[in-house]
Amino acid sequence: MAPPRAGLGTNQEAVRRHNLGTLLRHVHQRGQSSRAELTKGMGLNRSTIAGLVAELESLGAVEHADTVGGTRGAGRPSVGVRVARNGPFVVAVDLGVDRAVVARVGMGGTVLERAETVFEGSEAWQVGAVVAGLVRKVVADAPDLSPLVGIGISVPGLVRRSDGLIRLAPNLDWHDVSFGSIVLAALGVDVPISLANDADLGAMAEHERGAAVGVGDLIYVSGNVGVGAGVITGGQRLEGAGGYAGEIGHLRFNPGGKPCHCGNLGCWETEVGAHAIADAIRCPPERVPELGAVLAGYAKAPRELRAIGQAIGQGLASLINAFNPQVVVMGGYFGALYSLVRDEIDGGVADGALPAAAESVTLAHPALGDDSVLLGAAEMAFEPLFVDPPSALGRAILDARARVAG
Amino acid sequence: MAPPRAGLGTNQEAVRRHNLGTLLRHVHQRGQSSRAELTKGMGLNRSTIAGLVAELESLGAVEHADTVGGTRGAGRPSVGVRVARNGPFVVAVDLGVDRAVVARVGMGGTVLERAETVFEGSEAWQVGAVVAGLVRKVVADAPDLSPLVGIGISVPGLVRRSDGLIRLAPNLDWHDVSFGSIVLAALGVDVPISLANDADLGAMAEHERGAAVGVGDLIYVSGNVGVGAGVITGGQRLEGAGGYAGEIGHLRFNPGGKPCHCGNLGCWETEVGAHAIADAIRCPPERVPELGAVLAGYAKAPRELRAIGQAIGQGLASLINAFNPQVVVMGGYFGALYSLVRDEIDGGVADGALPAAAESVTLAHPALGDDSVLLGAAEMAFEPLFVDPPSALGRAILDARARVAG
Ligand SMILES: [Zn+2]
Ligand SMILES: [Zn+2]
Repeated sequence: MAPPRAGLGTNQEAVRRHNLGTLLRHVHQRGQSSRAELTKGMGLNRSTIAGLVAELESLGAVEHADTVGGTRGAGRPSVGVRVARNGPFVVAVDLGVDRAVVARVGMGGTVLERAETVFEGSEAWQVGAVVAGLVRKVVADAPDLSPLVGIGISVPGLVRRSDGLIRLAPNLDWHDVSFGSIVLAALGVDVPISLANDADLGAMAEHERGAAVGVGDLIYVSGNVGVGAGVITGGQRLEGAGGYAGEIGHLRFNPGGKPCHCGNLGCWETEVGAHAIADAIRCPPERVPELGAVLAGYAKAPRELRAIGQAIGQGLASLINAFNPQVVVMGGYFGALYSLVRDEIDGGVADGALPAAAESVTLAHPALGDDSVLLGAAEMAFEPLFVDPPSALGRAILDARARVAG
Repeated sequence: MAPPRAGLGTNQEAVRRHNLGTLLRHVHQRGQSSRAELTKGMGLNRSTIAGLVAELESLGAVEHADTVGGTRGAGRPSVGVRVARNGPFVVAVDLGVDRAVVARVGMGGTVLERAETVFEGSEAWQVGAVVAGLVRKVVADAPDLSPLVGIGISVPGLVRRSDGLIRLAPNLDWHDVSFGSIVLAALGVDVPISLANDADLGAMAEHERGAAVGVGDLIYVSGNVGVGAGVITGGQRLEGAGGYAGEIGHLRFNPGGKPCHCGNLGCWETEVGAHAIADAIRCPPERVPELGAVLAGYAKAPRELRAIGQAIGQGLASLINAFNPQVVVMGGYFGALYSLVRDEIDGGVADGALPAAAESVTLAHPALGDDSVLLGAAEMAFEPLFVDPPSALGRAILDARARVAG
């Protein structure tokens, strides 16, 4: 039975915390907001909004702004709030196959500090130590008393929703790795940590503040050594029973094709994955993890990429038939390919998808560029703050610089 | 911005109607409910529940029951409510490729009357007249004053969510047909009418009162001349941008295969659709629409079905990788096939799906047998009653027998 929507019997304190979170999420999404927008958007009266804003100010999450607005439409500037300058922040980790990008991200999705490294070994404890080092680096200059809300980690593999266990990261050859605990052990500090699949996080970020804001049904396809997808449907993330939905790299594509690491023949990934593309353009294997940059270096598509463009379009057609999205965001190296062989990709979609599904779909480059996944990891880490700000800030670390970097 | 959960500024009347609908849905799902269950399940106090029940009684939707419960678990019988005997009903239509099944369905999902016919021509107006005749038949014995809430029609094709237009029903050769209006015209009466894809409705019914009650992530695969799927994820129907999601019959399966009516080569449907199966077992084309019954006649699988069983399993593996469901309900003739070639189907899934997704999925026969889709159409037609009972009953037809059957 659905919970009652009524005020009857609800807990006033829970409602207030929920409203605090909703208001804070609104400001976070836009970076700022006028009092009038907040009053209208939340359906609450001015004095209630004023009370919520005052509490968020005292929590250090937002600050007064004399002039906001004017950036969207022709509205004249008015008084409001913006995210606090030295307010709560998170650490986002984009874990790749041979490299990690780590960023300190403030509210509003602002990258405040960034560090990146290519790692040698791929044992989980080695990678954990590398990540911990990068976390220390980006936290080293965090302002005193600026609270660290949590760490969000994007994973190139299957992550169990219930506890963040990495069930499989094929290109790292990891099976059942509790990487969150490994990173915390290397850091020696207890902070909320969450993990999710990279494509799912790319979808989340592009939906929140990228190419698919306000779009209820979208797919973020991720070309990143492996091929995966993050799906948002009806405004909600498609997770599946365990959190593993979106493994579209292993859709059957060409049963007479090449063997896939999953044990099948001719999965879509064997035709449009990074290794297949690298083979086609004779890119040396060690450059496969940076295939996006390699492809971005071409002014014009080499002939070999045309067939791959078609195969991308044909696979997308299956996805469009299955999910009926409004937008498909071409993440990872698919972005560079969509610039190079757009006609072939569009042609594959037009030929393969049912007209009713094809007619309303748009393929798009990620608006957040190479940072979709990283910013999605940040959004995930911020999430508890928008559910219950006082509790999330109660669990946050205030002296992060000293404790993490110590 | 999410709507505020607070009672602040909400409309008490809207809340009351919402609560009426929630209570009625609860009784509809179970057929009956004790006062204690309602109080607990809705989080409202006893006197509020009593007021809601009294209003639903006066609306003729529920009636007092001296003893309910005792059917689930060891609870002793207690006082409560059940669905009213001559209460609101709907008409459900399961439109097939050469036949229609129509039923009068009461609250609690009870089929009260049923009529079925095979039709000759497949022009939309001809089929509309056939359906209208069946509707008259099942309504002819409806009790006086029992309100007809609406008509729900299941369609073997793509239905536009915004207005119920049938964009494509390939095996009827219908393109952009406003079949709801055609049926209303043939009936000569104005009653709420809604249409949806057959597999989507099968999923809804099996989720509501079938093999997947309480399961948040499920796929209902429908073998019914064409092949489609209804997907429920996180408890919500996966609709897609236009309502066309789940067209998994046209997933690329064997690019060297047979031409599909959609224009592609080797869609999954060309290997596991009714025509492919009929070819394999030398079933004459005119019996294709009743393939489920033909297959159910086999005591043991003929050798030809083994390869088809494998192809079903391999295709399901792709779906399991994409959607990570907890349950896959084998609807239409897939049910009969799952009895005949279960090992081959299970083997195809086990070989093809990623272990993390495969380990938690169960394949199941539909608990509602051949009626999943029909009962799903009934659920769809009842839906407005559970959103706002007074409004839905205000739009209902009280003298249906006279007006529809007149
Ligand atoms: Zn594979
Ligand atoms: Zn097809």
